Amino acid sequence: MAHMNPKPSIPEGYTIPQVWKYNEETMKPVHGSNIPKSGPQSDKELPRGSHDIQLYGLGTGNGVKASIMLEELVEMDETFDYDAYTINIMKGDQFTSGFVAVNPNSKIPAIFDQSTGARVFESGAILVYLAEKYGKLMPTDLAKKAECLSWVFFQVGAGPYYGGGGLSHFKGRAPKNWEYAIDRYTIETKRILDVLDKALEGKQYLCGDEYTIADIMHWKWTSGLISQEYLDGASYSNLQRWSKTVAERPAVKRGERVLGWGSDAIPERHSRADTN
Amino acid sequence: MAHMNPKPSIPEGYTIPQVWKYNEETMKPVHGSNIPKSGPQSDKELPRGSHDIQLYGLGTGNGVKASIMLEELVEMDETFDYDAYTINIMKGDQFTSGFVAVNPNSKIPAIFDQSTGARVFESGAILVYLAEKYGKLMPTDLAKKAECLSWVFFQVGAGPYYGGGGLSHFKGRAPKNWEYAIDRYTIETKRILDVLDKALEGKQYLCGDEYTIADIMHWKWTSGLISQEYLDGASYSNLQRWSKTVAERPAVKRGERVLGWGSDAIPERHSRADTN
Repeated sequence: MAHMNPKPSIPEGYTIPQVWKYNEETMKPVHGSNIPKSGPQSDKELPRGSHDIQLYGLGTGNGVKASIMLEELVEMDETFDYDAYTINIMKGDQFTSGFVAVNPNSKIPAIFDQSTGARVFESGAILVYLAEKYGKLMPTDLAKKAECLSWVFFQVGAGPYYGGGGLSHFKGRAPKNWEYAIDRYTIETKRILDVLDKALEGKQYLCGDEYTIADIMHWKWTSGLISQEYLDGASYSNLQRWSKTVAERPAVKRGERVLGWGSDAIPERHSRADTN
Repeated sequence: MAHMNPKPSIPEGYTIPQVWKYNEETMKPVHGSNIPKSGPQSDKELPRGSHDIQLYGLGTGNGVKASIMLEELVEMDETFDYDAYTINIMKGDQFTSGFVAVNPNSKIPAIFDQSTGARVFESGAILVYLAEKYGKLMPTDLAKKAECLSWVFFQVGAGPYYGGGGLSHFKGRAPKNWEYAIDRYTIETKRILDVLDKALEGKQYLCGDEYTIADIMHWKWTSGLISQEYLDGASYSNLQRWSKTVAERPAVKRGERVLGWGSDAIPERHSRADTN
Protein backbone atom coordinates (compact mmCIF):
# COMPACT_ATOMS: atom_id res chain seq x y z
CA MET A 1 0.00 0.00 0.00
CA ALA A 2 2.69 2.47 1.04
CA HIS A 3 4.26 2.67 -2.37
CA MET A 4 1.10 3.98 -3.95
CA ASN A 5 0.48 6.85 -1.56
CA PRO A 6 0.93 10.04 -3.58
CA LYS A 7 1.31 12.26 -0.52
CA PRO A 8 4.76 12.51 1.02
CA SER A 9 5.01 12.87 4.75
CA ILE A 10 4.06 16.30 6.03
CA PRO A 11 5.57 16.31 9.52
CA GLU A 12 3.58 18.33 12.00
CA GLY A 13 2.87 18.07 15.69
CA TYR A 14 5.00 15.25 17.10
CA THR A 15 8.70 15.31 16.28
CA ILE A 16 10.11 11.83 15.77
CA PRO A 17 13.18 11.26 17.97
CA GLN A 18 16.58 10.42 16.47
CA VAL A 19 16.76 7.28 18.60
CA TRP A 20 13.44 5.97 19.94
CA LYS A 21 13.43 4.91 23.59
CA TYR A 22 10.85 3.03 25.60
CA ASN A 23 9.59 5.15 28.48
CA GLU A 24 7.70 2.89 30.86
CA GLU A 25 6.17 5.75 32.82
CA THR A 26 4.52 7.40 29.82
CA MET A 27 4.04 4.41 27.51
CA LYS A 28 2.80 1.64 29.79
CA PRO A 29 -0.48 3.44 30.58
CA VAL A 30 -1.10 3.82 26.82
CA HIS A 31 0.36 0.65 25.30
CA GLY A 32 -0.15 -1.76 28.18
CA SER A 33 1.73 -5.04 28.03
CA ASN A 34 3.05 -4.29 24.55
CA ILE A 35 6.73 -3.76 25.23
CA PRO A 36 9.76 -3.67 22.92
CA LYS A 37 11.25 -6.84 24.45
CA SER A 38 10.49 -10.53 23.97
CA GLY A 39 11.14 -13.53 26.16
CA PRO A 40 9.74 -15.08 29.33
CA GLN A 41 8.51 -12.88 32.18
CA SER A 42 7.87 -15.71 34.64
CA ASP A 43 9.00 -19.28 35.24
CA LYS A 44 6.25 -21.80 34.60
CA GLU A 45 6.07 -25.05 32.63
CA LEU A 46 3.22 -25.92 30.29
CA PRO A 47 0.92 -28.83 31.12
CA ARG A 48 1.21 -31.96 28.97
CA GLY A 49 -1.42 -34.57 28.15
CA SER A 50 -1.12 -38.11 26.77
CA HIS A 51 -1.72 -37.49 23.04
CA ASP A 52 0.93 -36.58 20.48
CA ILE A 53 -0.48 -33.14 19.73
CA GLN A 54 -0.65 -30.57 22.53
CA LEU A 55 -2.51 -27.39 21.61
CA TYR A 56 -1.86 -24.21 23.61
CA GLY A 57 -4.35 -21.62 22.46
CA LEU A 58 -7.45 -19.51 22.90
CA GLY A 59 -10.56 -19.02 20.79
CA THR A 60 -9.45 -15.85 19.00
CA GLY A 61 -9.59 -15.38 15.23
CA ASN A 62 -6.16 -16.98 15.00
CA GLY A 63 -6.65 -19.48 17.80
CA VAL A 64 -9.75 -21.16 16.36
CA LYS A 65 -7.89 -22.01 13.18
CA ALA A 66 -5.90 -24.59 15.17
CA SER A 67 -8.83 -25.99 17.17
CA ILE A 68 -11.01 -26.27 14.04
CA MET A 69 -8.20 -28.04 12.19
CA LEU A 70 -7.71 -30.49 15.06
CA GLU A 71 -11.46 -31.16 15.27
CA GLU A 72 -11.50 -31.80 11.49
CA LEU A 73 -8.79 -34.43 12.06
CA VAL A 74 -10.88 -35.91 14.88
CA GLU A 75 -13.81 -36.02 12.42
CA MET A 76 -11.82 -37.61 9.59
CA ASP A 77 -9.69 -40.11 11.48
CA GLU A 78 -11.23 -42.08 14.33
CA THR A 79 -7.79 -42.91 15.77
CA PHE A 80 -6.81 -39.24 16.11
CA ASP A 81 -7.10 -37.28 19.33
CA TYR A 82 -5.31 -34.37 21.01
CA ASP A 83 -4.95 -32.34 24.19
CA ALA A 84 -5.80 -28.65 24.37
CA TYR A 85 -5.03 -26.07 27.06
CA THR A 86 -6.19 -22.47 27.41
CA ILE A 87 -3.48 -19.82 27.33
CA ASN A 88 -5.07 -16.82 28.99
CA ILE A 89 -3.43 -13.90 27.17
CA MET A 90 -5.25 -11.39 29.39
CA LYS A 91 -3.38 -12.87 32.36
CA GLY A 92 0.00 -13.08 30.58
CA ASP A 93 0.18 -16.88 30.17
CA GLN A 94 1.95 -16.27 26.85
CA PHE A 95 4.95 -14.84 28.69
CA THR A 96 5.71 -17.91 30.82
CA SER A 97 8.95 -19.78 30.20
CA GLY A 98 6.94 -22.82 29.11
CA PHE A 99 4.97 -20.98 26.45
CA VAL A 100 7.96 -19.01 25.15
CA ALA A 101 9.72 -22.35 24.64
CA VAL A 102 7.01 -23.39 22.14
CA ASN A 103 6.58 -19.90 20.69
CA PRO A 104 9.35 -17.34 21.21
CA ASN A 105 6.95 -14.77 19.73
CA SER A 106 4.51 -15.20 22.69
CA LYS A 107 1.39 -15.43 20.48
CA ILE A 108 -1.28 -18.10 20.44
CA PRO A 109 -1.85 -20.66 19.03
CA ALA A 110 1.17 -22.94 19.32
CA ILE A 111 1.44 -26.72 19.36
CA PHE A 112 3.93 -29.26 20.58
CA ASP A 113 4.08 -32.72 19.02
CA GLN A 114 5.35 -35.29 21.52
CA SER A 115 5.90 -37.87 18.75
CA THR A 116 8.28 -35.76 16.64
CA GLY A 117 9.52 -33.23 19.20
CA ALA A 118 8.31 -30.43 16.91
CA ARG A 119 7.15 -27.13 18.30
CA VAL A 120 5.04 -25.26 15.76
CA PHE A 121 4.01 -21.63 16.08
CA GLU A 122 2.00 -19.34 13.77
CA SER A 123 -1.44 -20.63 12.82
CA GLY A 124 -0.43 -21.05 9.16
CA ALA A 125 2.56 -23.24 10.04
CA ILE A 126 0.41 -25.29 12.43
CA LEU A 127 -2.22 -26.01 9.77
CA VAL A 128 0.39 -26.92 7.15
CA TYR A 129 2.18 -29.18 9.65
CA LEU A 130 -0.99 -31.02 10.65
CA ALA A 131 -2.21 -31.27 7.03
CA GLU A 132 1.08 -32.83 5.95
CA LYS A 133 1.55 -35.09 8.96
CA TYR A 134 -1.95 -36.55 8.76
CA GLY A 135 -2.47 -36.23 4.99
CA LYS A 136 -5.68 -34.21 5.18
CA LEU A 137 -7.19 -30.94 3.94
CA MET A 138 -4.32 -29.87 1.66
CA PRO A 139 -3.86 -31.03 -1.96
CA THR A 140 -0.68 -32.98 -2.71
CA ASP A 141 -0.67 -32.13 -6.43
CA LEU A 142 2.00 -29.43 -6.85
CA ALA A 143 -0.17 -26.85 -8.66
CA LYS A 144 -3.23 -27.37 -6.47
CA LYS A 145 -1.10 -27.19 -3.33
CA ALA A 146 0.42 -23.93 -4.64
CA GLU A 147 -3.06 -22.42 -5.02
CA CYS A 148 -4.01 -23.58 -1.52
CA LEU A 149 -0.82 -22.23 0.08
CA SER A 150 -1.17 -18.92 -1.77
CA TRP A 151 -4.54 -18.38 -0.06
CA VAL A 152 -3.15 -19.58 3.28
CA PHE A 153 -0.30 -17.03 3.17
CA PHE A 154 -2.65 -14.33 1.87
CA GLN A 155 -4.66 -14.60 5.10
CA VAL A 156 -1.56 -14.23 7.25
CA GLY A 157 -0.50 -11.07 5.42
CA ALA A 158 -4.05 -9.66 5.40
CA GLY A 159 -4.87 -10.27 9.07
CA PRO A 160 -2.82 -7.37 10.46
CA TYR A 161 -4.75 -4.96 8.20
CA TYR A 162 -8.26 -5.94 9.29
CA GLY A 163 -7.56 -7.38 12.75
CA GLY A 164 -5.95 -6.10 15.93
CA GLY A 165 -3.00 -4.75 13.96
CA GLY A 166 -5.11 -2.38 11.90
CA LEU A 167 -8.82 -1.72 11.49
CA SER A 168 -10.15 -3.36 14.63
CA HIS A 169 -7.51 -1.55 16.67
CA PHE A 170 -7.97 1.93 15.23
CA LYS A 171 -11.76 1.62 15.05
CA GLY A 172 -12.33 0.23 18.52
CA ARG A 173 -9.30 0.37 20.78
CA ALA A 174 -7.05 3.31 19.93
CA PRO A 175 -7.42 6.23 22.35
CA LYS A 176 -8.83 8.49 19.62
CA ASN A 177 -10.79 8.00 16.39
CA TRP A 178 -8.31 9.13 13.77
CA GLU A 179 -10.16 9.38 10.45
CA TYR A 180 -7.04 8.87 8.32
CA ALA A 181 -6.10 5.56 9.95
CA ILE A 182 -9.69 4.27 10.06
CA ASP A 183 -10.22 5.06 6.36
CA ARG A 184 -6.88 3.58 5.41
CA TYR A 185 -7.60 0.22 7.07
CA THR A 186 -11.25 0.21 6.03
CA ILE A 187 -10.25 0.64 2.39
CA GLU A 188 -7.79 -2.23 2.67
CA THR A 189 -10.23 -4.45 4.58
CA LYS A 190 -12.93 -3.97 1.96
CA ARG A 191 -10.42 -4.60 -0.83
CA ILE A 192 -9.38 -7.87 0.87
CA LEU A 193 -13.04 -8.90 1.24
CA ASP A 194 -13.55 -8.13 -2.45
CA VAL A 195 -10.53 -10.29 -3.41
CA LEU A 196 -12.02 -13.20 -1.43
CA ASP A 197 -15.56 -12.63 -2.68
CA LYS A 198 -14.37 -12.70 -6.31
CA ALA A 199 -12.24 -15.81 -5.59
CA LEU A 200 -15.38 -17.63 -4.45
CA GLU A 201 -17.38 -16.73 -7.58
CA GLY A 202 -18.52 -20.04 -9.07
CA LYS A 203 -16.52 -22.05 -6.52
CA GLN A 204 -17.70 -23.73 -3.34
CA TYR A 205 -14.41 -23.24 -1.47
CA LEU A 206 -11.40 -20.95 -1.83
CA CYS A 207 -9.28 -23.48 -3.71
CA GLY A 208 -12.09 -25.10 -5.70
CA ASP A 209 -14.51 -27.91 -4.88
CA GLU A 210 -12.52 -29.16 -1.91
CA TYR A 211 -12.59 -27.70 1.60
CA THR A 212 -8.95 -27.07 2.60
CA ILE A 213 -6.81 -25.41 5.24
CA ALA A 214 -7.20 -22.18 3.22
CA ASP A 215 -10.87 -22.06 4.21
CA ILE A 216 -9.99 -22.71 7.85
CA MET A 217 -7.43 -19.88 7.78
CA HIS A 218 -9.93 -17.31 6.52
CA TRP A 219 -13.25 -18.43 7.97
CA LYS A 220 -13.45 -16.94 11.47
CA TRP A 221 -11.94 -13.55 10.69
CA THR A 222 -13.84 -13.12 7.44
CA SER A 223 -17.14 -14.23 8.95
CA GLY A 224 -16.73 -11.56 11.61
CA LEU A 225 -16.05 -8.89 9.00
CA ILE A 226 -18.99 -9.73 6.74
CA SER A 227 -21.34 -9.60 9.73
CA GLN A 228 -20.61 -5.85 10.06
CA GLU A 229 -23.05 -3.29 8.70
CA TYR A 230 -20.14 -0.80 8.82
CA LEU A 231 -18.37 -2.79 6.09
CA ASP A 232 -21.61 -3.41 4.14
CA GLY A 233 -20.91 -7.07 4.83
CA ALA A 234 -24.16 -8.24 3.25
CA SER A 235 -22.89 -7.11 -0.16
CA TYR A 236 -20.24 -9.86 -0.26
CA SER A 237 -22.68 -12.53 -1.40
CA ASN A 238 -20.17 -15.27 -2.23
CA LEU A 239 -18.50 -14.85 1.16
CA GLN A 240 -21.89 -14.95 2.89
CA ARG A 241 -22.74 -18.26 1.21
CA TRP A 242 -19.28 -19.76 1.88
CA SER A 243 -19.26 -18.59 5.51
CA LYS A 244 -22.58 -20.35 6.18
CA THR A 245 -21.45 -23.56 4.47
CA VAL A 246 -18.27 -23.73 6.56
CA ALA A 247 -20.11 -22.80 9.79
CA GLU A 248 -22.34 -25.87 9.41
CA ARG A 249 -19.44 -28.31 9.65
CA PRO A 250 -19.56 -30.24 12.94
CA ALA A 251 -15.80 -29.84 13.39
CA VAL A 252 -16.09 -26.06 13.01
CA LYS A 253 -18.82 -25.94 15.64
CA ARG A 254 -16.71 -27.98 18.06
CA GLY A 255 -13.54 -26.08 17.15
CA GLU A 256 -15.20 -22.83 18.18
CA ARG A 257 -16.02 -24.27 21.59
CA VAL A 258 -12.56 -25.72 22.30
CA LEU A 259 -10.68 -23.02 24.28
CA GLY A 260 -13.53 -20.69 23.28
CA TRP A 261 -15.50 -17.91 24.96
CA GLY A 262 -19.18 -18.88 25.10
CA SER A 263 -21.14 -20.58 27.87
CA ASP A 264 -20.51 -23.92 26.10
CA ALA A 265 -16.74 -23.32 25.92
CA ILE A 266 -14.33 -26.16 26.69
CA PRO A 267 -11.32 -24.61 28.46
CA GLU A 268 -9.34 -27.86 28.48
CA ARG A 269 -9.76 -30.86 26.20
CA HIS A 270 -8.33 -34.37 26.41
CA SER A 271 -10.76 -36.70 24.64
CA ARG A 272 -13.75 -36.83 22.32
CA ALA A 273 -15.99 -37.06 25.35
CA ASP A 274 -15.04 -33.49 26.30
CA THR A 275 -16.85 -32.02 23.28
CA ASN A 276 -20.06 -34.07 23.59
CA MET B 1 -1.57 -6.78 20.55
CA ALA B 2 -5.12 -5.47 20.68
CA HIS B 3 -6.16 -7.79 23.45
CA MET B 4 -3.59 -6.42 25.81
CA ASN B 5 -4.43 -2.72 25.50
CA PRO B 6 -5.84 -1.69 28.87
CA LYS B 7 -7.42 1.52 27.51
CA PRO B 8 -10.85 1.22 25.96
CA SER B 9 -11.69 3.42 23.03
CA ILE B 10 -12.35 7.03 23.98
CA PRO B 11 -14.18 8.36 20.93
CA GLU B 12 -13.42 11.99 20.25
CA GLY B 13 -13.14 14.09 17.13
CA TYR B 14 -14.14 11.93 14.16
CA THR B 15 -17.45 10.07 14.41
CA ILE B 16 -17.32 6.66 12.76
CA PRO B 17 -20.17 6.26 10.25
CA GLN B 18 -22.77 3.49 10.61
CA VAL B 19 -21.95 2.26 7.10
CA TRP B 20 -18.59 3.31 5.69
CA LYS B 21 -18.61 4.54 2.09
CA TYR B 22 -15.77 5.24 -0.29
CA ASN B 23 -15.80 8.89 -1.37
CA GLU B 24 -13.48 9.25 -4.35
CA GLU B 25 -13.43 13.04 -4.23
CA THR B 26 -12.21 13.26 -0.63
CA MET B 27 -10.33 9.96 -0.28
CA LYS B 28 -8.39 9.63 -3.54
CA PRO B 29 -6.19 12.70 -2.81
CA VAL B 30 -5.31 11.15 0.58
CA HIS B 31 -5.25 7.40 -0.07
CA GLY B 32 -4.19 7.38 -3.73
CA SER B 33 -4.60 4.16 -5.63
CA ASN B 34 -5.66 2.28 -2.49
CA ILE B 35 -9.33 1.63 -3.22
CA PRO B 36 -11.85 -0.75 -1.62
CA LYS B 37 -12.17 -2.84 -4.81
CA SER B 38 -9.99 -5.54 -6.34
CA GLY B 39 -9.70 -6.80 -9.89
CA PRO B 40 -8.18 -5.67 -13.20
CA GLN B 41 -8.26 -2.00 -14.18
CA SER B 42 -6.89 -2.50 -17.71
CA ASP B 43 -6.60 -5.25 -20.29
CA LYS B 44 -3.04 -6.41 -20.82
CA GLU B 45 -1.37 -9.81 -20.95
CA LEU B 46 1.88 -10.63 -19.13
CA PRO B 47 5.01 -11.43 -21.15
CA ARG B 48 6.23 -15.05 -21.14
CA GLY B 49 9.75 -16.41 -21.57
CA SER B 50 11.01 -19.89 -22.36
CA HIS B 51 11.77 -21.27 -18.89
CA ASP B 52 9.31 -23.03 -16.58
CA ILE B 53 9.35 -20.35 -13.90
CA GLN B 54 8.18 -16.84 -14.78
CA LEU B 55 8.74 -14.25 -12.05
CA TYR B 56 6.68 -11.06 -12.03
CA GLY B 57 8.09 -8.81 -9.36
CA LEU B 58 10.04 -5.79 -8.20
CA GLY B 59 12.94 -5.36 -5.80
CA THR B 60 10.92 -4.45 -2.71
CA GLY B 61 11.32 -6.13 0.68
CA ASN B 62 8.84 -8.77 -0.42
CA GLY B 63 9.91 -8.88 -4.06
CA VAL B 64 13.58 -9.70 -3.41
CA LYS B 65 12.60 -12.82 -1.47
CA ALA B 66 11.54 -14.40 -4.78
CA SER B 67 14.52 -13.20 -6.82
CA ILE B 68 17.00 -14.28 -4.12
CA MET B 69 15.35 -17.72 -3.91
CA LEU B 70 15.50 -18.13 -7.69
CA GLU B 71 19.16 -17.06 -7.76
CA GLU B 72 19.91 -19.58 -4.99
CA LEU B 73 18.38 -22.27 -7.22
CA VAL B 74 20.53 -21.01 -10.12
CA GLU B 75 23.55 -21.30 -7.80
CA MET B 76 22.68 -24.81 -6.57
CA ASP B 77 21.47 -26.46 -9.78
CA GLU B 78 23.29 -25.75 -13.02
CA THR B 79 20.31 -26.90 -15.09
CA PHE B 80 17.94 -24.38 -13.47
CA ASP B 81 17.06 -21.06 -15.04
CA TYR B 82 14.08 -18.67 -15.05
CA ASP B 83 12.58 -15.56 -16.61
CA ALA B 84 11.88 -12.39 -14.61
CA TYR B 85 9.88 -9.30 -15.53
CA THR B 86 9.48 -5.99 -13.70
CA ILE B 87 5.97 -5.14 -12.50
CA ASN B 88 6.06 -1.38 -12.06
CA ILE B 89 3.66 -0.86 -9.16
CA MET B 90 4.07 2.92 -9.40
CA LYS B 91 2.57 2.74 -12.89
CA GLY B 92 -0.21 0.29 -11.95
CA ASP B 93 1.14 -2.83 -13.71
CA GLN B 94 -0.30 -4.89 -10.82
CA PHE B 95 -3.82 -3.97 -11.94
CA THR B 96 -3.58 -5.39 -15.48
CA SER B 97 -5.75 -8.38 -16.39
CA GLY B 98 -2.60 -10.43 -16.92
CA PHE B 99 -1.18 -9.77 -13.47
CA VAL B 100 -4.51 -10.18 -11.68
CA ALA B 101 -4.75 -13.62 -13.30
CA VAL B 102 -1.56 -14.70 -11.47
CA ASN B 103 -2.35 -12.75 -8.30
CA PRO B 104 -5.94 -11.66 -7.66
CA ASN B 105 -4.56 -9.62 -4.74
CA SER B 106 -2.53 -7.37 -7.12
CA LYS B 107 0.66 -7.54 -5.03
CA ILE B 108 4.15 -8.48 -6.14
CA PRO B 109 5.85 -10.94 -6.31
CA ALA B 110 3.94 -13.64 -8.20
CA ILE B 111 5.16 -16.53 -10.31
CA PHE B 112 3.72 -18.71 -13.03
CA ASP B 113 5.12 -22.19 -13.64
CA GLN B 114 4.65 -23.22 -17.28
CA SER B 115 5.48 -26.85 -16.47
CA THR B 116 2.74 -27.37 -13.86
CA GLY B 117 0.30 -24.58 -14.73
CA ALA B 118 0.61 -23.31 -11.16
CA ARG B 119 0.20 -19.66 -10.36
CA VAL B 120 1.73 -18.83 -6.98
CA PHE B 121 1.24 -15.57 -5.11
CA GLU B 122 2.46 -14.35 -1.71
CA SER B 123 6.22 -14.49 -1.20
CA GLY B 124 5.90 -17.20 1.46
CA ALA B 125 3.92 -19.50 -0.83
CA ILE B 126 6.39 -18.88 -3.66
CA LEU B 127 9.40 -19.85 -1.53
CA VAL B 128 7.69 -22.99 -0.18
CA TYR B 129 6.63 -23.97 -3.71
CA LEU B 130 10.11 -23.56 -5.15
CA ALA B 131 11.77 -25.25 -2.16
CA GLU B 132 9.50 -28.30 -2.53
CA LYS B 133 9.57 -28.49 -6.31
CA TYR B 134 13.38 -28.31 -6.51
CA GLY B 135 14.18 -29.95 -3.17
CA LYS B 136 16.30 -27.10 -1.80
CA LEU B 137 16.55 -24.78 1.21
CA MET B 138 13.80 -26.33 3.33
CA PRO B 139 14.27 -29.36 5.62
CA THR B 140 12.21 -32.46 4.77
CA ASP B 141 12.31 -33.90 8.31
CA LEU B 142 8.88 -33.14 9.83
CA ALA B 143 10.10 -31.39 13.00
CA LYS B 144 12.82 -29.39 11.27
CA LYS B 145 10.41 -28.35 8.52
CA ALA B 146 7.92 -27.25 11.20
CA GLU B 147 10.57 -24.98 12.76
CA CYS B 148 11.47 -23.55 9.35
CA LEU B 149 7.82 -22.91 8.38
CA SER B 150 7.09 -21.34 11.77
CA TRP B 151 9.74 -18.70 11.08
CA VAL B 152 8.53 -18.29 7.48
CA PHE B 153 4.96 -17.58 8.62
CA PHE B 154 6.22 -15.38 11.46
CA GLN B 155 7.76 -13.02 8.89
CA VAL B 156 4.51 -12.78 6.92
CA GLY B 157 2.55 -11.86 10.03
CA ALA B 158 5.24 -9.44 11.26
CA GLY B 159 5.77 -7.57 7.98
CA PRO B 160 2.61 -5.45 8.18
CA TYR B 161 3.72 -4.16 11.60
CA TYR B 162 7.17 -2.92 10.61
CA GLY B 163 6.66 -2.36 6.87
CA GLY B 164 4.32 -0.29 4.74
CA GLY B 165 1.34 -1.52 6.72
CA GLY B 166 2.58 -0.08 9.99
CA LEU B 167 5.76 1.62 11.17
CA SER B 168 7.23 2.66 7.84
CA HIS B 169 3.86 4.11 6.83
CA PHE B 170 3.13 6.05 10.00
CA LYS B 171 6.72 7.20 10.43
CA GLY B 172 7.36 8.28 6.87
CA ARG B 173 4.25 8.46 4.72
CA ALA B 174 1.15 9.30 6.75
CA PRO B 175 0.08 12.94 6.40
CA LYS B 176 0.80 13.64 10.08
CA ASN B 177 3.19 12.28 12.71
CA TRP B 178 0.81 10.72 15.20
CA GLU B 179 2.81 9.79 18.30
CA TYR B 180 0.42 7.05 19.39
CA ALA B 181 0.64 5.13 16.09
CA ILE B 182 4.40 5.63 15.75
CA ASP B 183 5.05 4.39 19.31
CA ARG B 184 2.66 1.47 18.86
CA TYR B 185 4.43 0.18 15.74
CA THR B 186 7.91 1.01 17.04
CA ILE B 187 7.26 -1.06 20.18
CA GLU B 188 6.10 -3.99 18.06
CA THR B 189 8.95 -3.64 15.56
CA LYS B 190 11.56 -3.67 18.32
CA ARG B 191 9.84 -6.63 19.97
CA ILE B 192 9.97 -8.53 16.66
CA LEU B 193 13.66 -7.67 16.24
CA ASP B 194 14.28 -8.93 19.77
CA VAL B 195 12.49 -12.23 19.00
CA LEU B 196 14.73 -12.72 15.95
CA ASP B 197 17.89 -11.61 17.74
CA LYS B 198 17.27 -14.10 20.55
CA ALA B 199 16.45 -16.84 18.00
CA LEU B 200 19.89 -16.34 16.45
CA GLU B 201 21.74 -16.63 19.77
CA GLY B 202 24.25 -19.43 19.31
CA LYS B 203 22.90 -20.31 15.86
CA GLN B 204 24.23 -19.35 12.45
CA TYR B 205 20.82 -19.23 10.78
CA LEU B 206 17.22 -18.91 11.97
CA CYS B 207 16.49 -22.65 11.86
CA GLY B 208 19.93 -23.84 12.97
CA ASP B 209 23.12 -24.52 11.05
CA GLU B 210 21.43 -24.59 7.65
CA TYR B 211 20.51 -21.56 5.58
CA THR B 212 16.83 -21.96 4.63
CA ILE B 213 13.91 -20.10 3.10
CA ALA B 214 13.24 -18.67 6.59
CA ASP B 215 16.44 -16.63 6.30
CA ILE B 216 15.44 -15.44 2.82
CA MET B 217 12.01 -14.39 4.11
CA HIS B 218 13.46 -12.19 6.88
CA TRP B 219 16.74 -10.95 5.47
CA LYS B 220 15.92 -7.85 3.42
CA TRP B 221 13.30 -6.35 5.74
CA THR B 222 15.27 -7.08 8.89
CA SER B 223 18.54 -5.79 7.46
CA GLY B 224 16.79 -2.51 6.66
CA LEU B 225 15.46 -2.23 10.20
CA ILE B 226 18.74 -2.96 11.96
CA SER B 227 20.47 -0.30 9.85
CA GLN B 228 18.32 2.36 11.54
CA GLU B 229 19.71 4.47 14.37
CA TYR B 230 16.06 5.26 15.28
CA LEU B 231 15.56 1.58 16.23
CA ASP B 232 19.00 1.32 17.88
CA GLY B 233 19.70 -1.29 15.21
CA ALA B 234 23.31 -1.75 16.29
CA SER B 235 22.14 -3.29 19.57
CA TYR B 236 20.79 -6.41 17.84
CA SER B 237 24.18 -8.06 17.61
CA ASN B 238 23.08 -11.52 16.48
CA LEU B 239 20.97 -10.00 13.71
CA GLN B 240 23.90 -7.81 12.65
CA ARG B 241 26.16 -10.85 12.33
CA TRP B 242 23.50 -12.92 10.51
CA SER B 243 22.59 -10.08 8.15
CA LYS B 244 26.21 -9.71 7.03
CA THR B 245 26.63 -13.47 6.53
CA VAL B 246 23.55 -13.69 4.33
CA ALA B 247 24.47 -10.52 2.40
CA GLU B 248 27.75 -12.13 1.32
CA ARG B 249 26.02 -14.93 -0.58
CA PRO B 250 26.48 -14.51 -4.35
CA ALA B 251 22.83 -15.43 -4.96
CA VAL B 252 21.69 -12.73 -2.55
CA LYS B 253 23.81 -10.12 -4.31
CA ARG B 254 22.39 -11.13 -7.70
CA GLY B 255 18.85 -11.45 -6.32
CA GLU B 256 18.98 -7.84 -5.16
CA ARG B 257 19.88 -6.70 -8.68
CA VAL B 258 17.19 -8.73 -10.48
CA LEU B 259 14.18 -6.36 -10.87
CA GLY B 260 16.00 -4.08 -8.41
CA TRP B 261 16.49 -0.35 -8.04
CA GLY B 262 20.23 0.44 -8.23
CA SER B 263 22.35 1.47 -11.20
CA ASP B 264 23.28 -2.22 -11.67
CA ALA B 265 19.63 -3.34 -11.66
CA ILE B 266 18.45 -5.98 -14.13
CA PRO B 267 14.88 -5.02 -15.12
CA GLU B 268 14.33 -8.18 -17.15
CA ARG B 269 16.15 -11.50 -16.86
CA HIS B 270 16.17 -14.53 -19.13
CA SER B 271 19.51 -16.28 -18.64
CA ARG B 272 22.59 -16.50 -16.45
CA ALA B 273 24.35 -14.13 -18.82
CA ASP B 274 22.00 -11.33 -17.74
CA THR B 275 23.47 -11.20 -14.23
CA ASN B 276 27.13 -11.32 -15.23
